[in-house]
Amino acid sequence: MLRFYTAGESHGKGIFAYLEGFPANFPVDFDFINREMARRQKGYGRGGRMKIEKDRVEFLSGVRLGKTLGSPILMAVWNRDYKNWEEVMRPEPGQLPPEKKVTRPRPGHADLPGVLKYGFDDVRNVLERSSARETAGRVAAGALCKDLLRRLGIEVGSFVLSIGSAQVPMEAIEGKSFKELFENAENSQVRIPVSDPEVEETFKREIDGAKAKGESLGGVFVVFATGVPVGLGSHTQWDKRLDGRIAQAIMSIQAIKGVEIGLGFEAARLPGSKVHDEIFYSQERGFYRLTNNAGGIEGGITNGEPIVVKAAMKPIPTLYKPLRSVDIKTKEPFEASVERSDVCAVPAAAVVGEAMLAIVITAALLERYPADSFEELRLLFY
Amino acid sequence: MLRFYTAGESHGKGIFAYLEGFPANFPVDFDFINREMARRQKGYGRGGRMKIEKDRVEFLSGVRLGKTLGSPILMAVWNRDYKNWEEVMRPEPGQLPPEKKVTRPRPGHADLPGVLKYGFDDVRNVLERSSARETAGRVAAGALCKDLLRRLGIEVGSFVLSIGSAQVPMEAIEGKSFKELFENAENSQVRIPVSDPEVEETFKREIDGAKAKGESLGGVFVVFATGVPVGLGSHTQWDKRLDGRIAQAIMSIQAIKGVEIGLGFEAARLPGSKVHDEIFYSQERGFYRLTNNAGGIEGGITNGEPIVVKAAMKPIPTLYKPLRSVDIKTKEPFEASVERSDVCAVPAAAVVGEAMLAIVITAALLERYPADSFEELRLLFY
Amino acid sequence: MLRFYTAGESHGKGIFAYLEGFPANFPVDFDFINREMARRQKGYGRGGRMKIEKDRVEFLSGVRLGKTLGSPILMAVWNRDYKNWEEVMRPEPGQLPPEKKVTRPRPGHADLPGVLKYGFDDVRNVLERSSARETAGRVAAGALCKDLLRRLGIEVGSFVLSIGSAQVPMEAIEGKSFKELFENAENSQVRIPVSDPEVEETFKREIDGAKAKGESLGGVFVVFATGVPVGLGSHTQWDKRLDGRIAQAIMSIQAIKGVEIGLGFEAARLPGSKVHDEIFYSQERGFYRLTNNAGGIEGGITNGEPIVVKAAMKPIPTLYKPLRSVDIKTKEPFEASVERSDVCAVPAAAVVGEAMLAIVITAALLERYPADSFEELRLLFY
Amino acid sequence: MLRFYTAGESHGKGIFAYLEGFPANFPVDFDFINREMARRQKGYGRGGRMKIEKDRVEFLSGVRLGKTLGSPILMAVWNRDYKNWEEVMRPEPGQLPPEKKVTRPRPGHADLPGVLKYGFDDVRNVLERSSARETAGRVAAGALCKDLLRRLGIEVGSFVLSIGSAQVPMEAIEGKSFKELFENAENSQVRIPVSDPEVEETFKREIDGAKAKGESLGGVFVVFATGVPVGLGSHTQWDKRLDGRIAQAIMSIQAIKGVEIGLGFEAARLPGSKVHDEIFYSQERGFYRLTNNAGGIEGGITNGEPIVVKAAMKPIPTLYKPLRSVDIKTKEPFEASVERSDVCAVPAAAVVGEAMLAIVITAALLERYPADSFEELRLLFY
Repeated sequence: MLRFYTAGESHGKGIFAYLEGFPANFPVDFDFINREMARRQKGYGRGGRMKIEKDRVEFLSGVRLGKTLGSPILMAVWNRDYKNWEEVMRPEPGQLPPEKKVTRPRPGHADLPGVLKYGFDDVRNVLERSSARETAGRVAAGALCKDLLRRLGIEVGSFVLSIGSAQVPMEAIEGKSFKELFENAENSQVRIPVSDPEVEETFKREIDGAKAKGESLGGVFVVFATGVPVGLGSHTQWDKRLDGRIAQAIMSIQAIKGVEIGLGFEAARLPGSKVHDEIFYSQERGFYRLTNNAGGIEGGITNGEPIVVKAAMKPIPTLYKPLRSVDIKTKEPFEASVERSDVCAVPAAAVVGEAMLAIVITAALLERYPADSFEELRLLFY
Repeated sequence: MLRFYTAGESHGKGIFAYLEGFPANFPVDFDFINREMARRQKGYGRGGRMKIEKDRVEFLSGVRLGKTLGSPILMAVWNRDYKNWEEVMRPEPGQLPPEKKVTRPRPGHADLPGVLKYGFDDVRNVLERSSARETAGRVAAGALCKDLLRRLGIEVGSFVLSIGSAQVPMEAIEGKSFKELFENAENSQVRIPVSDPEVEETFKREIDGAKAKGESLGGVFVVFATGVPVGLGSHTQWDKRLDGRIAQAIMSIQAIKGVEIGLGFEAARLPGSKVHDEIFYSQERGFYRLTNNAGGIEGGITNGEPIVVKAAMKPIPTLYKPLRSVDIKTKEPFEASVERSDVCAVPAAAVVGEAMLAIVITAALLERYPADSFEELRLLFY
Repeated sequence: MLRFYTAGESHGKGIFAYLEGFPANFPVDFDFINREMARRQKGYGRGGRMKIEKDRVEFLSGVRLGKTLGSPILMAVWNRDYKNWEEVMRPEPGQLPPEKKVTRPRPGHADLPGVLKYGFDDVRNVLERSSARETAGRVAAGALCKDLLRRLGIEVGSFVLSIGSAQVPMEAIEGKSFKELFENAENSQVRIPVSDPEVEETFKREIDGAKAKGESLGGVFVVFATGVPVGLGSHTQWDKRLDGRIAQAIMSIQAIKGVEIGLGFEAARLPGSKVHDEIFYSQERGFYRLTNNAGGIEGGITNGEPIVVKAAMKPIPTLYKPLRSVDIKTKEPFEASVERSDVCAVPAAAVVGEAMLAIVITAALLERYPADSFEELRLLFY
Repeated sequence: MLRFYTAGESHGKGIFAYLEGFPANFPVDFDFINREMARRQKGYGRGGRMKIEKDRVEFLSGVRLGKTLGSPILMAVWNRDYKNWEEVMRPEPGQLPPEKKVTRPRPGHADLPGVLKYGFDDVRNVLERSSARETAGRVAAGALCKDLLRRLGIEVGSFVLSIGSAQVPMEAIEGKSFKELFENAENSQVRIPVSDPEVEETFKREIDGAKAKGESLGGVFVVFATGVPVGLGSHTQWDKRLDGRIAQAIMSIQAIKGVEIGLGFEAARLPGSKVHDEIFYSQERGFYRLTNNAGGIEGGITNGEPIVVKAAMKPIPTLYKPLRSVDIKTKEPFEASVERSDVCAVPAAAVVGEAMLAIVITAALLERYPADSFEELRLLFY
């Protein structure tokens, strides 16, 4: 059983990932992990902080001389400017000058429900943890899982389909392999899966336009996994269905409001004969399909086709353009302040989506092929 | 901690729901539960079986003299025609005539991945459990939760937005209360939230048309909860976020391929200022919003507004119109057989969606409000 | 992941066991299971009820034509005299004549803390579930696990070491194989592991003497497993240590107050050189030990030697000889009534101990060896 | 739901504790926590390392300005001499000179089963995690829980009953309050609950004698909790019984081989009338008992009396006096090496026992009185 949690506050000492149940003797690729960290920080339209912080992972436990020990893996992504925040964020007791207390909850954030739930008088006690900076821990743990999967031939990737009203033309995608789409996305500043300067420009203009208006933007991205074996997940109990687990993992990413598997909502509009993937067989390939409307999962079980997940991200709730809100102390209305300055984080969220999908698939893999060590897993898997 | 599982095969002795952690001394409303069972079985376009089986719940444990005991609740929905299936489905050993073995997996079902995962030579070993009949257990347990919630002022309901290409006009919904929409849905054969014979007719025609062509249809439905208190779920860990839990619960329903919370995919298209719900305050109402684009959840925590979830159901994979598949024994191609005859089960799925939402909310409620007994819960809740 | 729960009240419709995650295609041995049920009901000094109820297991789900389906297994042990209890125990609402309410909590039972926790005015709401009759469900599920294990060469058994002041002489045990000890226990009315009429007589006299005095007796029993592979459990996290899991499972049995693994408390008295099992190696046997003071577990991991667990059972809290207590309604003192009439249930508890050990080992086995189906498990295990 | 895990290797960067679900707004007492850390390191007969390392806790997350945030708490106990171990323990890849590989498993440790389970060629990969140094993390998290409990009037403590053959005379304990016993233990170098220089001397002599012979010693200790409310834990499911959870938590401590609750094994020898605690009532005290043979738990539920747990620790497996073992590489026999030099760690284990008991009680408390914040918990509790 894979256990995965994160800890840490946005401006605290760091963000941490706890990963337990990962096979022993896995050779950790430190560069791969740090590259993944960097991928989360890229993207046209990110604000200033992304430049300050070059996230790197330090292993605090569970890895020795380059290999996993089978014991709990604790990863740290230290916050480089913690020193500047120490007065406000330190664990040690201390009085905060009243003006440093945040009493103004931002619409669209955990701020207000969080403060009411926990009985805080300082919104910072909520926003520090609800911040999307937490996803650094997800990407760190996800990187380890992605690396494990790719050594077994399972590739996890992502690309962006739309940002605000800018859309990738569907015909530019059709017929292309996930490999190609992914490579294009890797070379795009907005993670779109087409190598077309004009389309790229449309996306950038959309972002620039929003920025000019003090607006923020959301978008839609795809996360996929190829090379997935048949039989992960199970139809036998509601909480063992892999589609449900994926939906939870993706929906749990900050600002995600919708998740689709395969055709998703499109499947609700089409007649059955247009939706279900017919089954074929040949001696070389075994059972196979010519379509993948199911997105790789039938009855909660992987069917050997690529897993395809689509996610909708709402615009970042922090705007230059203010929204009305109410001070929790004075109960006076105000216009909501800006805590952070990204216009659009969809490409970053897509990378986080990869991490979460990789974690869920790894967990399902280790339930089907329990493996104390990586060699064992490798052996069982083939 | 609420534990909920189902057991049972579609043509076995029955479907069973196991519910543990439910408060003691809750007065069970048997009629309410059986009405919920009936609601799952209604809907224009259901096949023959719905008429045979009038599902009723028998409590096997956990309830005494009308009240819950705090001990595990086991509910049975006996299959009335088990006798006719005994030869094929009995637990006792026995040779099945080869012709009674199902070797033909249906596209769109768990059939093929299930058979490959578990190493079966009879598809029935999978389809009996992956069948949507399992949702009878979900509705049974969900009914208990719904009943608990409504006594605390939390109403859970659902309605259908579209079936195939038939859509409820958005303007017919706008401005209406959930109460009204729900009441309309209750009076509609296709669970649409408008009392408009013309629209109703469009839906029925859509279903009739599909039936005539040997097709099946999916659709989109809304599940909602009103009266939800602030503070269910938490932003502090990915798997404590209520939106993630809801997404898993809804996506785990058979044939669901998409889940949205609040605006969902629409939120990805709009600028931030059109998406985030501004915050207001008055002495009578406390904090409140004038919009609910968030669907009642911000940062993984309920914000006091109604929870609104949208789900996309694919067409039932069993068609009269055959799809190509391959016999698992002979490896010969064939055209997929019909195991069951519903054209459209969207209204039923919406009722199942209510059950799953009610279970998730109840679980979150019991994590926030201590309640060994219902009186205690009631007291604390107010 | 193996999930195991029970449901059901002592005089309700039945006792039920829910077992999920058990491999598919396992050929269920119905006779074996029912023999296990009978073993739980045997033992010198049991009261009248054991004669009424010949427990038999009915599979409600998860088994088809003699083989497991991989889906949740629900087992029922129906209560044969439920009809006589229906008025008092039925789930349907109904007024109970005040004199049928139990208001007198028995010392040593869950009665009083249970009533206070849940706010009941009828002790029966607690005692029906806390009763040791619940262990019928444990034995049912445990039998399935025991059967799986023995087909992999892992034998789980038990024997009694003492009842009250009657003790099996240690020298009668030393040097004997678990097989022989177990066979002796199977032929003894008090489950002692020696075939010595005199010792048997001592035990019976102890029980008879207690009965005459209106007393009840506890005792000490051993549960063991032979043929256990190296590597179940893990040292890497506190809750993955197999010794901890075993301790929980055994301590959770009604009336158990002490658990030892290997030497147990004896290990606390001896110097290190007398406690730790030296390690040897030969080509035929691989690594092995000449002693087993560790009871088969080092650092929370099985070491290939037999698992040996000792448990202490307190006397059954229901006595003919009354104990002082207080009526929960009137707050008047009284002398505690007799609900049930066993003098000694140590042999039965030992059989329950086997079930719990078998369940814990099976769970650990399935975490180490992937096994969607029994064939797969068998293959991997060797 | 309280989640508690540790991470870290004995000579790695540090030992870490992850604690999630702890109420918000709890004022952390840093001195208290560090005093608890120091208590774990005391005790007559500890080896050299205890002097090097003065463990102190650093909060990496979850605490701000002296108060908990409700978000995951990550605590670090840095290893002060990691620099000296860096070559051997660093996470970064590197070749270890063959002579630095540990190939000699010590009897009584996880060494051999661990190496076989995970397929390691270096025993250090196991022993670094199985080491009792891990308990620093348990004590850190336990200290937070102990502090929470004592503010609610629940005191958790421990004392030693025996070390090797040295025993505290029972008559020296009888009739004394837990408070007094605990205070005595705090002032004793061997944690015995009596203030008697002669007895203290006997214990020290026992330890000195063992040391002279190259031996190690185990012992028996008591962990207790007073002020526990009625109703923690539940009789309704085997894994909800508090006694089972306590047994797991205590048995999971390194080197523990036996756990008793209340009378424990003694209860197996006595007749029922001598075991069960009679129930009394007065208006001032409510229900109460004059005896506490049950150790505070009946039917898996706390009954309001002190929880009393006894644990048996085997001698530390590392001896100066060598034991026979086998090199895992050469398969040659050898006499087992000394990794660490404590003669007796029973007093330290008792402090760890306090931590584990405090964690289990806190978890049960938060299941009965779920509380987002400490104020809420305080309110509910009274």
